[in-house]
Amino acid sequence: MKICIVGLGLIGGSYAMGLSKKGHKVYGIDKNIQAIQFAKDKGFILEGFNKETAIIEECDCIILAIYPQAILDFLYKNQAHFKENQIITDVCGVKNSFVRKATLLARKATYLSHHPMAGREKLGIEYADDKIFNGANFIITPLEETPQQAMDVLKEIAQDLNFGKITTVSLDKHDQMIGFTSQLTHAIAVSLVNSDYAEDTQRFIGDSYRDLTRIAMINEVLWSELFLENRETLLKHIENFESELNVLKLALKQGDRALLQELFIKSTNIRRKMEK
Amino acid sequence: MKICIVGLGLIGGSYAMGLSKKGHKVYGIDKNIQAIQFAKDKGFILEGFNKETAIIEECDCIILAIYPQAILDFLYKNQAHFKENQIITDVCGVKNSFVRKATLLARKATYLSHHPMAGREKLGIEYADDKIFNGANFIITPLEETPQQAMDVLKEIAQDLNFGKITTVSLDKHDQMIGFTSQLTHAIAVSLVNSDYAEDTQRFIGDSYRDLTRIAMINEVLWSELFLENRETLLKHIENFESELNVLKLALKQGDRALLQELFIKSTNIRRKMEK
Repeated sequence: MKICIVGLGLIGGSYAMGLSKKGHKVYGIDKNIQAIQFAKDKGFILEGFNKETAIIEECDCIILAIYPQAILDFLYKNQAHFKENQIITDVCGVKNSFVRKATLLARKATYLSHHPMAGREKLGIEYADDKIFNGANFIITPLEETPQQAMDVLKEIAQDLNFGKITTVSLDKHDQMIGFTSQLTHAIAVSLVNSDYAEDTQRFIGDSYRDLTRIAMINEVLWSELFLENRETLLKHIENFESELNVLKLALKQGDRALLQELFIKSTNIRRKMEK
Repeated sequence: MKICIVGLGLIGGSYAMGLSKKGHKVYGIDKNIQAIQFAKDKGFILEGFNKETAIIEECDCIILAIYPQAILDFLYKNQAHFKENQIITDVCGVKNSFVRKATLLARKATYLSHHPMAGREKLGIEYADDKIFNGANFIITPLEETPQQAMDVLKEIAQDLNFGKITTVSLDKHDQMIGFTSQLTHAIAVSLVNSDYAEDTQRFIGDSYRDLTRIAMINEVLWSELFLENRETLLKHIENFESELNVLKLALKQGDRALLQELFIKSTNIRRKMEK
């Protein structure tokens, strides 16, 4: 396929790296000339474009690896370039807030959103690494009218990048689940780290604290957008979490060893099922 | 040194493994005959004892790798075996609740508690692995009267097991810090997993959820003890965490992007300092 990746950051760059390895003809569009140069030097893309976007017309698939709010703007400005039989997709962590609008702006092209459940706590194409996708979950969020051909293209991309399980769900279900597994975990890690009032915590940490708080290193621009675009769902998940934490607090306050053990056995059983 | 390890579980077994490799004469005491046999077969110990504890008299250092509540009982029953110039230590994750009592029961021997900040989400000597200690934090909690010689013995053990930073703090400070870095993180992971009401969460998780919830697989007997023995401190840490989470909730509810970004920048800065 001829593929155009818009946004050569960590994820866009990793897509370019993996897809070019598989023999696809990959092009890149980015506002940052250095990112384009890096992608060309590494062989991630055949050619890169800074302001000119006409390359889109030649491509079978356009992957938008930019922030949610930038997507609608990009689509709006490039409507003239979209053609039938093109697939336009994005890698955003929220869906409900923009996918239907994006579908309209894609005009004759087919818009089909997806979400690669992988990343790193680093920014920029210099950290691109297609290995981060190995075995990771890949979620596709079709609308009722999405043609099978578009589904097939995304599945091909998932396979070429060595993703693991491919799951197809509605926009609602996506945002519901990601609000829990991704946004809530980030909200918790951030709040945990921000409640650290000691000066010398580092000397008292083990792997559990390191693992749990790694995602507290967070891109504030992207994640404030993701949180706000899925606000109601995330708030609901936070409240459910708080309720569970309250049960644990009650058990502690009352010295209820049996209840504590019950909570631990429950979490152990639920979590053990998720081991790869 | 002649070292006796009481409790051949994951941690006791890993100590035996690492210390015997370094040429120490290591003996083991355990209620479980299979654990003794395993340790002997693997060469972790020279000899193991099931009920007989007289081997203690011959040892320079006794390492109690058993649960907090079992320590006082063991010390009480074995007072006749303790001698001058012996060091008795333990690996418990709480200190304040028992170390002063343990010091009295150790009689002529010197009791000096420590805490290896390492572990695995597995139980039993079959999972013993001295590599878990590589570079990990090692905390020693002396009393005012602890002689330097005892400190030196524990530092030698820490070095022989390839621990990283050795930190010396009071019992209070230990429990305060571990209440935050270890117990609070476990409380959070357990509550997060227990607030998972979906059937198919597994298809929507990435590494962040996996890393954050790994410690929700938790030994309910040990950890209910640890939580209850540090109850007031842990409750305080939970409340501080809840306050931070409330700030984040408020930012979400009010759509306050600037505040969200501020929280994310703060957590990123604090956490980045802890990267190894």
